[in-house]
Formats: sequence, C-alpha cells, structure tokens
Amino acid sequence: MTRVTDIGEDALVTRLLAQLPHAPDELRVGPGDDCAVVPFSENEWQLLKTDAIVEGVHFLPEESRNLVGWKAIARVVSDFAAMGGRPRWFMITVGIPADAAIAPLEQLYQGMADCLQTYGAALVGGETTSVASETGLFISIAATGFVEKSHLILRSTARREDQVFVTGRLGGSQAGRHLAIQPRLAEAHWLASRGFATAMMDLSDGLAKDLPRLARASGLGFSLDLDSVPCHENCTTAEALQDGEDYELLFTCAPCDAEKLLALWWDAFPETPLSCIGQMVDAADSMPLHGGWDHFAPGAEA
Amino acid sequence: MTRVTDIGEDALVTRLLAQLPHAPDELRVGPGDDCAVVPFSENEWQLLKTDAIVEGVHFLPEESRNLVGWKAIARVVSDFAAMGGRPRWFMITVGIPADAAIAPLEQLYQGMADCLQTYGAALVGGETTSVASETGLFISIAATGFVEKSHLILRSTARREDQVFVTGRLGGSQAGRHLAIQPRLAEAHWLASRGFATAMMDLSDGLAKDLPRLARASGLGFSLDLDSVPCHENCTTAEALQDGEDYELLFTCAPCDAEKLLALWWDAFPETPLSCIGQMVDAADSMPLHGGWDHFAPGAEA
Repeated sequence: MTRVTDIGEDALVTRLLAQLPHAPDELRVGPGDDCAVVPFSENEWQLLKTDAIVEGVHFLPEESRNLVGWKAIARVVSDFAAMGGRPRWFMITVGIPADAAIAPLEQLYQGMADCLQTYGAALVGGETTSVASETGLFISIAATGFVEKSHLILRSTARREDQVFVTGRLGGSQAGRHLAIQPRLAEAHWLASRGFATAMMDLSDGLAKDLPRLARASGLGFSLDLDSVPCHENCTTAEALQDGEDYELLFTCAPCDAEKLLALWWDAFPETPLSCIGQMVDAADSMPLHGGWDHFAPGAEA
Repeated sequence: MTRVTDIGEDALVTRLLAQLPHAPDELRVGPGDDCAVVPFSENEWQLLKTDAIVEGVHFLPEESRNLVGWKAIARVVSDFAAMGGRPRWFMITVGIPADAAIAPLEQLYQGMADCLQTYGAALVGGETTSVASETGLFISIAATGFVEKSHLILRSTARREDQVFVTGRLGGSQAGRHLAIQPRLAEAHWLASRGFATAMMDLSDGLAKDLPRLARASGLGFSLDLDSVPCHENCTTAEALQDGEDYELLFTCAPCDAEKLLALWWDAFPETPLSCIGQMVDAADSMPLHGGWDHFAPGAEA
C-alpha cells in the first residue's frame, strides 16, 4: 500500500488533483501558483488563497498566541504580494481542543486582527470547530485579494537568461523569526507596477525547494550562485537554502532591466536587501538542488 | 481559568469576534449568517464561506472516503443555497496524517469532484498539510459563490407573524444520511427568485439549535407546533429537533403568501415535503427550546 511518506508533498498533490475534472476556461490560474486567479472586473482579477497552520508543525504550544495569529494572516498576505496583488477579505477557521482555555484564543484573534489591520484587510466570517484534546490547535485561513490585470505576476513566466533575485536575508527562521513575519507587500507592488518581475513567488519552504518549483513551473532550469545567497547573521548558506519560512520574494528579471532595477530599488527600499543570486537556464542545464521543507518528505530527504 | 466548554460555541464565537476591528461599511453581511456577503458587481453579491469537517467529529474513520468528500463540498453548497445563491470556486485544504495511505485520499478527492460537478462548481486551489499520526484527517473548504442582489435572503430578516417552514424531513442523520447530503439548491433558488422567503438558513445543527438562531438574528421569538415537525421514518420528534445534519431549508414566509407558496410548491417540487411548523412572535413570547448540536456544549446541554 502506498503511503504519503513514500511519494512526498508535490507528487501527492499532483496525484490528488488528477482526480478532478478539467478546470473551466474562465479560470486564469488554477492549483499550482501562490493563489488561484479568477475573473472579477474589467481591470482586476480576484485572487483566492487558503492556508493552514497546525500546532506542533508550524508553531509550538509554548509560542505566543498573539504572534501565531499574526503569522496565520501574514503568510496569506505574503502569497497575495507574490502575485502582485493585495489582500481584502479573510475567513478564519479555528480547530479548538474542547478543554482549551479562552484567554489564549482571545490573544490569537488579537494577533490576527493586528495583522489584518496592518495590511488593509478585514475578517468577514469563519467558524470554530472542536478537535480532540490530544490534537493541537489548527488555524485555517481563506482569503480573497485583488490584482490589477496588468500587475499579475505568475511563477510560471520566467524566461531563459532572466536574472534571479531575492529580497531580504534567508535562513534561521526557527530562531524566532518564523512568527513575526513582515510580508513584502510594498516591495512586491512596486515590482509589479513597474514591470520588473517576469515571474515571482514567496519563499515559504526554503530556496532549495522553491527555486526549483519556480523553474519547473516556467519549464526551465536555474544556475544558482551559492556565494550570493544572502544569509541571516549566524546562518550558513545551507541553512539559508533549507530552513524555510523566510517569506521573502523570489523573482526573475529580464537581463536588460536588472541594472535599472538595482539602481531604483535602493532609493525605494533602502532597508530591504536585494540580491541577484543566479539566472534561469534551459531545464537540461539546471544545477541540482535538494532539501527545503516538505510536509511529507520521502526517506531520502527527511 | 475559563475554558471553551464552560461557555459553549455561540458565546465563544461572540467573544472571539469582539477582538476584531469594526467591519468596513462595504461589507454587506459579516460573521453570523450562513455566508459573508461582499461587493462583486452591479447586480450580484459575492458569497464567501469556509467550513471544516474533522475525523471523529463529522465522520468516522471507517466511513466511505468518497462520501466524506461529497459531504465536505455539499455542506458548503447548502450554505450558498440558504442565502439564495449558487456555488462557484472552491479551495480545499486537507490535513493528512503522515502515515496515511494514498488510495483513500484519492477516493476522498473523487467524492469532492463528483459533488463539485453536480452543483456547477469548480476547484481552483488549496493545499495539503501534515498532521500528527494520532490526529485524524481534517478537510477545510473555502468557497466563493454568487447571488443576484434581488435574491439575497438573510437569516436576520424574519418579521413578526411570518409562518415558519421547513423542507424535507428531519432527524436520524446518524443512520447513514449524514454523508450523502442533497443540498436544496433548486428549492432555495425557486424560493429566492419568487420572493417567498423573508428569512432563510440551512439546518445543520438541528432545528432546536437553528430556529432559535434565526429568531435571535431577527430580534424575534417563535412559536413551534411540535406535531407539525416532519420526522424521518423511525425518528421521534425529539430526534428531529436535536440530531442535526439535516441540511434542509428553514425559512419564514409572510402570512399572506403562505397559501400561494404551498399551492405552487407541490407543482414545482412534488417530491420535496414542505411543512409549516410555526410562526414568528415577539421575543418575549418565544417558547423555550433547548438542545441541538454544540461543538463546545456547556454541562447543561452536553
């Protein structure tokens, strides 16, 4: 009998989605990108996203419920940013062990409220459901966002010879940073509205997992300059590649635009590092890169 | 320390929502109805809904994964129906124990696909996440739907002296019926487009829990004729009130329209029972009604 640990997360999702009927033509982007993209108005697409975090997997029982709430919302804001869009309406489902205390749940909602307000979004619904006492809390977010049609950036549209860029510094998220996420909404909007990014995604599972995803979605390979990968203090390059939960932007830029991008970037975002870390190549010429976070890692990667 | 079991589900939700900032004006309906209602186009509102089902709570480990998938989607279709709307885009999050077998997961997705296709909806995204092995499977659905502005029916707009109606028969859902739900989409659309329903919701937690909710949302009470409650074969009235998971429509109708409604109904839906079970009265004159399903029932109701 085949189990999910035998094949890993990406293969599992591919296999499950194969059960579903062909997507309708009006669907601009279906499963596989940071968000789904569906028709909204003449000038805008609607973005749809769901995301769940689970106690013991994405946060620990002893971690601040306020920050856990912030993280639950901020992860989704980061996904909307990665498409060039902005968040709007949120629904929250919380699975609560029956013996849970109320005060930490109120802190959780306060953290969610702070993050929603910070990024111009609002809660419109959701529900609570009970889970068995031995199960931890889970929080499932569903949200809609919007993107101007001319600003939409997919992960599947990188071109050969495009330069690969990453914002911020990577690695060491488990050293406290994995909760207090600051999604790169302003930076992403700037990139999208100026047309610099040919493809983009946010880094949630680590560069080692996400760069190959962007390349595969674009039908390309990549060449990564390991010495250029921006590492957080006290982090090795291996940690920067593999730790995950960076919530930085990974994007590609046409070679002819790269110099202009860098020149304008420092004026616009003097406090946000921007690093060119490689380029897109033919799939056959891609360098091998393994690791990163996989919820159902096969033995080889565990 | 106050725990969720001390106050029950409705009070918990009220307390958690109090943490959140005031909803924006453009939000037509926020938390509290079957779906949230947000702006879409000149003629339509968008409906937003999330819903989770959890192994051991909403379905059992040994129950057909195909039917569990059907149920997960159909519950949400029923919520859209209850607002006078129709379902459109779905996102699915599945929490999977790491040692889960793949074949039952494929059956689960097949059941979801069947239900989506039956009701004219489509999957656009979602994700899988791992949960601890001792935890059961959970399935969280997020969906958008649409309703013509003139068809929108809330649960908060019943009027004093309106007659209370229920479709189908109630009770005994645990005797196999709780999975193979048939949402009353056609009936609800008929009611909404003809203007018969002054308020409506779907019955998910049992008439004893849901009728008081509809009355409270409308600032009214109710008088229920227990002998008129339509019971499934081999079910007592108590079971019809309390079992929950009926997924029938509960709605109110102006007294002057009730006779016409009944006359037209039998032509339109000869196979769907329709029963008048009471009327709306002033809150002070409401009859007491207890029981029904509560995820966090306080001792008195457990």
